[in-house]
Amino acid sequence: MVKHNEPVVKENLRGGQGHVVLYPILTAEELMGHGTMYARVVIPPHCSIGWHQHVGNTEPYYIIKGEGTFVDHDKSRTTVHAGDICTIACGEWHSMENNSEEDMEMIALVINE
Amino acid sequence: MVKHNEPVVKENLRGGQGHVVLYPILTAEELMGHGTMYARVVIPPHCSIGWHQHVGNTEPYYIIKGEGTFVDHDKSRTTVHAGDICTIACGEWHSMENNSEEDMEMIALVINE
Repeated sequence: MVKHNEPVVKENLRGGQGHVVLYPILTAEELMGHGTMYARVVIPPHCSIGWHQHVGNTEPYYIIKGEGTFVDHDKSRTTVHAGDICTIACGEWHSMENNSEEDMEMIALVINE
Repeated sequence: MVKHNEPVVKENLRGGQGHVVLYPILTAEELMGHGTMYARVVIPPHCSIGWHQHVGNTEPYYIIKGEGTFVDHDKSRTTVHAGDICTIACGEWHSMENNSEEDMEMIALVINE
């Protein structure tokens, strides 16, 4: 089956700045108990996903476009581009900021521990 | 942690034409038993992933660039573009062809039943 889901705008996601746009790929039900979210995420310039913890799951980010600033569990900050993979262990914290002048895009997958 | 995995070239993947390039995102181990493969896949012009079955798992494709032809379990053929999601049920068959003159790219996730 081929489908094309409608985007969802989230304001101040996880306490972040501005808004992000989620393009859902699979629902939790479609992930069949293995995870809770799978989506393309567009972060506009000077917007962010706030600092948040993953308890009982983890959320790798895979960058597909633009430039982001990944804030890791130890608060280290890394500039990331297309092809970069940002992982944390289950139980850890992270955030993602777009401090550039262009949209940045990534694939986010929340998988259970 | 931020990482950037090396691409892997696969000739005649699943019996397909030419080659495809896999950019691994997570290994089976990193998927913690929930799946076996998570990668960005680049299909060059006039190359394809051959017709194959998913027993005990499924593999949604999420198109991020270019134009592909998705061949579904019932052999129906659908032209797909960025933002399209191609799903099959566990146990079903599918393939993906690039009949265009530009690379097409997608995210492939193999998740267990």
